[in-house]
Amino acid sequence: MTQRYQVLLAYDGFAYHGWQKQINGLSVQEVIEKAFEKIHKQKTSITASGRTDAGVHATGQVFHFDADGKISEYGYEQALNTILPKDIRVLKVKKVSAEFHARFSAREKRYDYVLTRKKNDPFSYRYKTKVRDNIDVDVMRKASRIFLGKHDFTSFTHAKIPENKPRVKEIRNIVITEEGQDIRIRFEADGFLRYQVRMMSAVLIRAGEGKLTEKQIQAMLDARDKEAVRFNAPSEGLYLVKVTYDPEFAISDDSET
Amino acid sequence: MTQRYQVLLAYDGFAYHGWQKQINGLSVQEVIEKAFEKIHKQKTSITASGRTDAGVHATGQVFHFDADGKISEYGYEQALNTILPKDIRVLKVKKVSAEFHARFSAREKRYDYVLTRKKNDPFSYRYKTKVRDNIDVDVMRKASRIFLGKHDFTSFTHAKIPENKPRVKEIRNIVITEEGQDIRIRFEADGFLRYQVRMMSAVLIRAGEGKLTEKQIQAMLDARDKEAVRFNAPSEGLYLVKVTYDPEFAISDDSET
Repeated sequence: MTQRYQVLLAYDGFAYHGWQKQINGLSVQEVIEKAFEKIHKQKTSITASGRTDAGVHATGQVFHFDADGKISEYGYEQALNTILPKDIRVLKVKKVSAEFHARFSAREKRYDYVLTRKKNDPFSYRYKTKVRDNIDVDVMRKASRIFLGKHDFTSFTHAKIPENKPRVKEIRNIVITEEGQDIRIRFEADGFLRYQVRMMSAVLIRAGEGKLTEKQIQAMLDARDKEAVRFNAPSEGLYLVKVTYDPEFAISDDSET
Repeated sequence: MTQRYQVLLAYDGFAYHGWQKQINGLSVQEVIEKAFEKIHKQKTSITASGRTDAGVHATGQVFHFDADGKISEYGYEQALNTILPKDIRVLKVKKVSAEFHARFSAREKRYDYVLTRKKNDPFSYRYKTKVRDNIDVDVMRKASRIFLGKHDFTSFTHAKIPENKPRVKEIRNIVITEEGQDIRIRFEADGFLRYQVRMMSAVLIRAGEGKLTEKQIQAMLDARDKEAVRFNAPSEGLYLVKVTYDPEFAISDDSET
């Protein structure tokens, strides 16, 4: 009998060449699949909600895998967290029906982009993007409204997307909050194109620094042209925070309450 | 003409074998002295307020060095932060009189020890010490009063201190605060013995977890015996936050206001 498991995962992406396996560097996926090989004594492939790029963090990545069902949810949590390095942590393992697919069942995603005004902070460079002291958060908030709703985001991706693949995404919410010297931009959408959050963040930062007007940003979006936006905010500020599924597949860290 | 400079410094100590130069690993001192060698084209030795152990962080370490006085304070700030790795940052450079000595002029030090209740957090293991969810902060606060005032802290050091060296330190303040799932223990004293803050923290953690009573802690202190305390909290939770000097030698990060 094959049993499908759903896993909630957090990682500090600084040391990794992104989620997806590749030849030129260690990926999060590879490290986890090697841990499964130790547990199962055979190769096990895992499928995530989506890949994250090099240096990007996750507090709520989700993946699934199939196994023979002999190991309990708790058994996997303990085994994985024992084998995995400290910068990759399993928050929850759940048995699910075979209908569940970490990517195709996803209904909504939340990414946060974190900025800091702190100068010369040795604790920030892995986790936050440095911005000018005088960045105007209200200007950022106003500019962010341009992105709300359903739009063709071709201008906000560098990826080579096949012509027939939809580039329309629905941004449902953008909330910008300040915590001390940090600024957090929260994006919620039905999904995001590759680099979309970092390119939108780069544009909002430039708006807050007075280098881009709302009119210019609107024109970028309207252009639907991969060459229209030439900014990409650094990976270290980006966090995959939550993947939302239908209620039967909801997963959360018990300790978060 | 020899000019003395005072430097305020922050570092993420995770990657370093402590402040002091040694043969078996890279130290913060060594990295900074190499940066000075690039700037001065000759060896320059630096003297800190005190050493920090492997993995210990600093948000307010202070050191001094002597040079010919041709480079401005701002010039050193820029040059050092260009050469130094991102986990070591210079916050301020100040010309001072030759009477200033980073160690001997120090009047007070503040160290913070940071705990977290967060389970499976890939962002904590370098910076915070994991404690039980049900740790009782009020019990910790009550127990911390035992340390206040002037005491012989022989029981709270592992170091081989020569018989004639004073082991009496005056703890002027201990403040325990909670921020979300984190707990911060702030210690202020005229100085600390080696390992003292980590050993006091380990004892306070055990008090909060119900494993040590106030009576037992008082007996440990009264013992004045290097074998009396067998606990040492891990280095990753410890931060050298501030070294206080007489007003003429006060130094602070301008951006902190």
